[in-house]
Amino acid sequence: MQTIGHFINGQHHDEHSRTQAVFNPSTGTQDKQVSIASAKTVEHAIASAQAAFPAWRDTPVIKRARVMFKFKELLEQHADKICELIGEEHGKIVHDAAGELQRGIENVEYACGAPEFLKGEFSKNVGPSIDSWSEMQPLGVVAGITPFNFPVMVPLWMFPMAIVCGNTFVLKPSERDPSATLYIAQLLQQAGLPDGVLNVVNGDKVAVDTLLHDHRVQAVSFVGSTPIAQYIYQTATANGKRCQALGGAKNHAIVMPDADIDNVVSSLLGAAFGSSGERCMALSVAVAVGDEVADLMIAKLSEAMKALKYGPYFDKNNDFGAVITAEHKAKVIAYIDSAEQQGAKIIVDGRQAAPTGYENGFYVGATLIDQVQANMTSYKEEIFGPVLQVMRVNNMQEAMDLIDNHEYGNGTCIYTRDGEAARYFSDHIKVGMVGINVPLPVPVAYHSFGGWKRSLFGDLYAYGPDGARFYTRRKTITQRWPTANVREGAQFSMPTLN
Amino acid sequence: MQTIGHFINGQHHDEHSRTQAVFNPSTGTQDKQVSIASAKTVEHAIASAQAAFPAWRDTPVIKRARVMFKFKELLEQHADKICELIGEEHGKIVHDAAGELQRGIENVEYACGAPEFLKGEFSKNVGPSIDSWSEMQPLGVVAGITPFNFPVMVPLWMFPMAIVCGNTFVLKPSERDPSATLYIAQLLQQAGLPDGVLNVVNGDKVAVDTLLHDHRVQAVSFVGSTPIAQYIYQTATANGKRCQALGGAKNHAIVMPDADIDNVVSSLLGAAFGSSGERCMALSVAVAVGDEVADLMIAKLSEAMKALKYGPYFDKNNDFGAVITAEHKAKVIAYIDSAEQQGAKIIVDGRQAAPTGYENGFYVGATLIDQVQANMTSYKEEIFGPVLQVMRVNNMQEAMDLIDNHEYGNGTCIYTRDGEAARYFSDHIKVGMVGINVPLPVPVAYHSFGGWKRSLFGDLYAYGPDGARFYTRRKTITQRWPTANVREGAQFSMPTLN
Amino acid sequence: MQTIGHFINGQHHDEHSRTQAVFNPSTGTQDKQVSIASAKTVEHAIASAQAAFPAWRDTPVIKRARVMFKFKELLEQHADKICELIGEEHGKIVHDAAGELQRGIENVEYACGAPEFLKGEFSKNVGPSIDSWSEMQPLGVVAGITPFNFPVMVPLWMFPMAIVCGNTFVLKPSERDPSATLYIAQLLQQAGLPDGVLNVVNGDKVAVDTLLHDHRVQAVSFVGSTPIAQYIYQTATANGKRCQALGGAKNHAIVMPDADIDNVVSSLLGAAFGSSGERCMALSVAVAVGDEVADLMIAKLSEAMKALKYGPYFDKNNDFGAVITAEHKAKVIAYIDSAEQQGAKIIVDGRQAAPTGYENGFYVGATLIDQVQANMTSYKEEIFGPVLQVMRVNNMQEAMDLIDNHEYGNGTCIYTRDGEAARYFSDHIKVGMVGINVPLPVPVAYHSFGGWKRSLFGDLYAYGPDGARFYTRRKTITQRWPTANVREGAQFSMPTLN
Amino acid sequence: MQTIGHFINGQHHDEHSRTQAVFNPSTGTQDKQVSIASAKTVEHAIASAQAAFPAWRDTPVIKRARVMFKFKELLEQHADKICELIGEEHGKIVHDAAGELQRGIENVEYACGAPEFLKGEFSKNVGPSIDSWSEMQPLGVVAGITPFNFPVMVPLWMFPMAIVCGNTFVLKPSERDPSATLYIAQLLQQAGLPDGVLNVVNGDKVAVDTLLHDHRVQAVSFVGSTPIAQYIYQTATANGKRCQALGGAKNHAIVMPDADIDNVVSSLLGAAFGSSGERCMALSVAVAVGDEVADLMIAKLSEAMKALKYGPYFDKNNDFGAVITAEHKAKVIAYIDSAEQQGAKIIVDGRQAAPTGYENGFYVGATLIDQVQANMTSYKEEIFGPVLQVMRVNNMQEAMDLIDNHEYGNGTCIYTRDGEAARYFSDHIKVGMVGINVPLPVPVAYHSFGGWKRSLFGDLYAYGPDGARFYTRRKTITQRWPTANVREGAQFSMPTLN
Repeated sequence: MQTIGHFINGQHHDEHSRTQAVFNPSTGTQDKQVSIASAKTVEHAIASAQAAFPAWRDTPVIKRARVMFKFKELLEQHADKICELIGEEHGKIVHDAAGELQRGIENVEYACGAPEFLKGEFSKNVGPSIDSWSEMQPLGVVAGITPFNFPVMVPLWMFPMAIVCGNTFVLKPSERDPSATLYIAQLLQQAGLPDGVLNVVNGDKVAVDTLLHDHRVQAVSFVGSTPIAQYIYQTATANGKRCQALGGAKNHAIVMPDADIDNVVSSLLGAAFGSSGERCMALSVAVAVGDEVADLMIAKLSEAMKALKYGPYFDKNNDFGAVITAEHKAKVIAYIDSAEQQGAKIIVDGRQAAPTGYENGFYVGATLIDQVQANMTSYKEEIFGPVLQVMRVNNMQEAMDLIDNHEYGNGTCIYTRDGEAARYFSDHIKVGMVGINVPLPVPVAYHSFGGWKRSLFGDLYAYGPDGARFYTRRKTITQRWPTANVREGAQFSMPTLN
Repeated sequence: MQTIGHFINGQHHDEHSRTQAVFNPSTGTQDKQVSIASAKTVEHAIASAQAAFPAWRDTPVIKRARVMFKFKELLEQHADKICELIGEEHGKIVHDAAGELQRGIENVEYACGAPEFLKGEFSKNVGPSIDSWSEMQPLGVVAGITPFNFPVMVPLWMFPMAIVCGNTFVLKPSERDPSATLYIAQLLQQAGLPDGVLNVVNGDKVAVDTLLHDHRVQAVSFVGSTPIAQYIYQTATANGKRCQALGGAKNHAIVMPDADIDNVVSSLLGAAFGSSGERCMALSVAVAVGDEVADLMIAKLSEAMKALKYGPYFDKNNDFGAVITAEHKAKVIAYIDSAEQQGAKIIVDGRQAAPTGYENGFYVGATLIDQVQANMTSYKEEIFGPVLQVMRVNNMQEAMDLIDNHEYGNGTCIYTRDGEAARYFSDHIKVGMVGINVPLPVPVAYHSFGGWKRSLFGDLYAYGPDGARFYTRRKTITQRWPTANVREGAQFSMPTLN
Repeated sequence: MQTIGHFINGQHHDEHSRTQAVFNPSTGTQDKQVSIASAKTVEHAIASAQAAFPAWRDTPVIKRARVMFKFKELLEQHADKICELIGEEHGKIVHDAAGELQRGIENVEYACGAPEFLKGEFSKNVGPSIDSWSEMQPLGVVAGITPFNFPVMVPLWMFPMAIVCGNTFVLKPSERDPSATLYIAQLLQQAGLPDGVLNVVNGDKVAVDTLLHDHRVQAVSFVGSTPIAQYIYQTATANGKRCQALGGAKNHAIVMPDADIDNVVSSLLGAAFGSSGERCMALSVAVAVGDEVADLMIAKLSEAMKALKYGPYFDKNNDFGAVITAEHKAKVIAYIDSAEQQGAKIIVDGRQAAPTGYENGFYVGATLIDQVQANMTSYKEEIFGPVLQVMRVNNMQEAMDLIDNHEYGNGTCIYTRDGEAARYFSDHIKVGMVGINVPLPVPVAYHSFGGWKRSLFGDLYAYGPDGARFYTRRKTITQRWPTANVREGAQFSMPTLN
Repeated sequence: MQTIGHFINGQHHDEHSRTQAVFNPSTGTQDKQVSIASAKTVEHAIASAQAAFPAWRDTPVIKRARVMFKFKELLEQHADKICELIGEEHGKIVHDAAGELQRGIENVEYACGAPEFLKGEFSKNVGPSIDSWSEMQPLGVVAGITPFNFPVMVPLWMFPMAIVCGNTFVLKPSERDPSATLYIAQLLQQAGLPDGVLNVVNGDKVAVDTLLHDHRVQAVSFVGSTPIAQYIYQTATANGKRCQALGGAKNHAIVMPDADIDNVVSSLLGAAFGSSGERCMALSVAVAVGDEVADLMIAKLSEAMKALKYGPYFDKNNDFGAVITAEHKAKVIAYIDSAEQQGAKIIVDGRQAAPTGYENGFYVGATLIDQVQANMTSYKEEIFGPVLQVMRVNNMQEAMDLIDNHEYGNGTCIYTRDGEAARYFSDHIKVGMVGINVPLPVPVAYHSFGGWKRSLFGDLYAYGPDGARFYTRRKTITQRWPTANVREGAQFSMPTLN
């Protein structure tokens, strides 16, 4: 059985310690295992990053950026391999993996622009003959801890920006699907990154805690569930580090009476069931304003859902694949059960999913639930499965109150044609990423990703302009020169000519 | 005896509860006392701020800015009164208070530019006919906790920026010298600020903890000592708030062999002894590179120090005044004692300060100590008194190592004429604010203030561009409109015309 | 009879040369005359500006900004006097003059933010130990030539920005209504501006040509009609100056079938007839999409126009006042006549305007014309009077074609509720300033003003960020220091210690 | 004999009309000729660009940027071929051509960051519920006219930025060495650029004038000599186009008494003689402050110049190659003659250059002239050959006066170790690009290139941030939505649900 190790100081690194199973969710089989790093291994990675820092920070930014230019080329050249690795361990269909990779590459593209976004501000004559300017200097060693659902994209939110800013990096990817992450780390080395600038360790809470407590780690970026995000944030900040910790979500779409319903239906299919709903930006609740629109939408949705296909990752005809583990499959089904028990109406039921030939895979079919209420468990918590719940309200304000009262504030969307409704919604809703007729309003790589409320802990968001700011610290220099021996005076006798 | 109360929802507010003495340090007498807010009073202030938020956030930014324009006018008109209040309770000489006020006004001036610095970023066609933009929205209720040493300037670092960004504010100033702070809060109300947008509560740890734990408070700005800063940061972040907490300092100047020594001496006098050294940017350690420059500098410094005058705040001929309390005076003297006991050489001794007629004031004279070593207590800790310590090293690298090994990284300075030395120093030194021949490199209001290492907890600095970023959170909108019924089609039958 | 002179080097300046009549349009009488500067007088102003430049450019930007802070205060204090002067010589009603002044003050407010918008860009390590940064340095002497219709606002678009950037200025305002302009120039002097930094000369083509040909003038800003703008631009650029020349306009509103017609009507009244239509952003053509909306709009407009009042400037009950001269009145009437002759339908006829008691004033009443065609003289040219013309088209594309085919491209507006229509329009229309349900989309002072096509010659627009860019030129410094005698070496023998 | 044609609408294009000889300067032979476009051919190119514009402007910016990412890859892959083509027709040594190409590629890298630098500014609530934002829209068809001395780099300053901003382009490169330019245009097509977006026409004044007068061309970028730059600027602006026209230079270095002379000498060699001095940033005048430094510098320079090698472009051991034509060789020699005749002292004489085997090549050897005076012809005019002239002054101010009194203000440099001297110089010198110990202070691609005085006509510089600004025009949208039928009202009866 293949054992997946670590990547430290430019070398494959393994230690013969604990391991954990890595499954192929499409088939339900286990073909690999992953090494679980000890504290010592993590410290080795940190030490490697620390050692690589001085030379890397002094490398001109354009040279750092050129490693990213080359990295982009390599990611594109090896896209098929990367998508295969994602599919094999995560279960998402290869076209979905390709989409993930593309979104990740966009962050590499943005990182290529570092010479622009790392500019400081220069002020002439802040006082008489006194100038002042700021420099955005790298922090040193920074760490990233990333989730299973985007084994390539979320790491690419972090380390390209951190590294192009002059930092060195220790990444702890998800132990569920580590291979694709390790693979792209090696591509970055091929792109010319010096050894030790990027290190990858696989592991569990031991690795996480080592990163959180080691004083050499200056900053931590995290994406995962809210309870863990909160733990990461509290622990990292208690140890004096800067931290950005992105947590869970419950993303609502408001469907207004004037919405283009065909557009609503077609876009909700992808937004709710794509990647089996295992996305922090998945659109999992549709709030219909008025029963008329609700009934129409449900009729069209349930019809359209008949055509959805799911199955193994390598079949491009599938719309979505398995969920990550058997445990997670059970958990998603339990949420559907609870909704049913608490009074909601199961319109389309995906609980009996078992594609022929892949009966042992971890599948859940696309599920549509109507009559969901705010006090139901399936509404209050994040399901992270292919389940779309419908709620009904009387007007837009009720819909907005629902959203604002929810614990999470990651993404949301309104479907309308009306400029005023859209503007009122986007202005007032307490959510960080807002779509207007766009169900998955993930900001492009040159903006920044972040939710409000308990969806994000910290003040700077992931990637884009905020990423640059998070991975640098400000130094402000104020400069005045003593007057002018050389310029005005007896300069001909100065010894430098002798 | 005058009792100083709170300022809540546009009203003077008092409760008959605990009080604490407020001294006149110049004379050592107590003429006033200050109310110490109960949790209930603080919650009243928070509730007022919460209630004022919706209308204030929706006020166009130019109107918010105009309140700041008017506030600047009022601060200038009432400068004498403000400086008198500062001097009376803090002890600094009125010309020093005027300098503090001026620095504070500069932050108000910067806040007037909010329409510019609150602009979001607009991207056309992030996809086909899809636009995306960011808005920097206010947080809600934010809190500031400020130290005794700048009762006007440090609050003005915070609330003008927070408020002009659309937040409402609860300020807890130092209970040592609250009157000037309260006075300027009232001026802001006169400038047209709606009731409840700025609230001031005096208090102690009870007030602080109430602010740190109340879920309505979205963010906390703090300036004070490092242990408290760390507590504030850990507690605020553990409660899910964003936080910037500025702590202590030990600011070194490197004096290079080619420095302009007369400039060194004259500028060190102000930087070390101004405001009795009670500044987090006070220059408290001079590191001479080579004995030659050390001896020359000490000779000139000790001569120049003979002319320094200290005494009551209202006498403009004084260079500096009393320290804040009798306890603090004793602490400063104890540091000097410890240096002497640990082997340093007291060149000029200010321990017996007692200006005629003001013998009971809390005075410490300007003190110069030579032969200070890195392991001495007086070096390791922040003295916050009029004490300048001299260290001797053999070369610039040794000097830089000293600075980098110190716990704090607030400010530093190099005296040299040489471009290369200055550039190497400013590039590599692990300090956030660097002066080149500028001993107090406090960034101007249109840059941002913040140290490195244990001088600042958080990732965004005080005031300036970082202040704007700290007091707002990003919202990113992605927008696509359904195609074109109105533009292309059968629009003449639309009901909006009927 | 009062003779209005010049303001040069901080002094009132008159020469006994040519003069020109200044009328009171409200009454039609002449009470004043204005000196018409000779080339020599203009050269005197240029020389004064040239002499004032070196000290002013070296004045720290925050001090330059503080003159603007004070200027704002004085403009607000003297608002009544300024509006009186505007009304007396221009004829606009005092509340309209107050609006003009307010818009002008907003440019002063923006100029107060110069420390922010004059920041250069600093790049560390563009090569090994090489840094590079940009400085936005002032140009020297710059000139402004401004029109009669906004004697206060348009000058305030120019000289506050130019001056706060460190330039010195020669302004040639309109000789029709020079008094308000001269008055505010004196207020700026009171605000602390050094003599010679702002100079005002009244004059005609002689003055203009002197400014255009004098090699000491580095840049010219102009607002006026298109033929003159083109002449100014060609002449200034042929003489190697930078130039921005804003010309005429023909601003169309598209009224879509889904528009809020009551809003259309009420907002068109002000946009078409305010200031007697003597605004380069006046909304002079309403393009109705479909006869249904056209008929409805005309019915409501003609009803609402009955309530409009016009008369002398000092009566606040008036909605608008006289036009600038008797000649201009005749010209506006001739345009109405021509429309009638060419087949358009005069719905409301303002040609017989003669308010009781002011029969000799230069009045034209609000005029509404239907059935206007693209080949009519009144459509092809700018009327600059209180005349609103209605055109009828079958769909939005036809309306857009009309606008795009017109010579001018200053401002435009669409009335709709539909997000898609608005977005398509604003994306594709060849006009520089676009309103969505906003009939006068004059950019606020923190954006920039400029049209497309023959409405603007040059590449940088008026005021706001472009203003800062226009009034400065870039200097880029690239810096490397020779290695390290002082830092590393035998520094103890350096002579600066002796 | 090979005939070099045009590249229009993605196709090789030739017409059988006039031709002009293309020489190999290294050998003096003619192997090729170039077609000289008629007005009709140029109009065909313009029409192709015009036709390609609508689709290209609507292509999302990230997709436009990705063409540039791919273009960078192709330029790197084909570097040898490009350098060969440059050397063959221009004469510069292949390592110098590689440097030129690298500088050009840096502009392509910068263009890849278009999603960042094309962001507009978004302002919420400029009034109650009114938003305003700016968009930087492309201009349409823009033209570039480029010089012989950088057949790859200067075109790459222009078209990547113009095209990534959404414009389409007509390039007229130098007819002396057109092949490399055509080659890279074809690479850009290979990178995925749609046909017609970039067109290249070879030609002379006929082509230039066609571009300057055609109303479809919106903007013109030019680099060449000052008289032509002025003609281009006057003609383009007279035709209502925006224009940036970069002209000649006379770049001085001040050598201060405290300069690191070995560094001065080694860096001047490359800056004066590299590319045979055929660079607008060539350092052609060294101003020594004091005879002591002058004598020392001349002694070391003349010694070092003995080791310089020149000869054919393909021999990497050569330091520089031939000049562009026999005529230009004669002109350079005539300048040296005139200096000698007017009293200067020829220290090293390159007039008899004739490398063995290449006696017919257009060679001039490295020449050093002392005792140059400001009134000599060789000082007043740009030589554009491998000639370094030395002047002697008594102090820095005299040196600065020399520079400021010269017609040109492109680049300059000071050699010193002293911070104050460097800062005074860079602040006050009237030159656009300033080096501090950097003899060729060409701004990196993420800053902008431009001189002052008669070295540049226009207000926006080449490439970098100014390039983005030059190739776009601002559109400002102000938006308010009518209140809320959909949001608040009787929305259930709306027809969109039917």
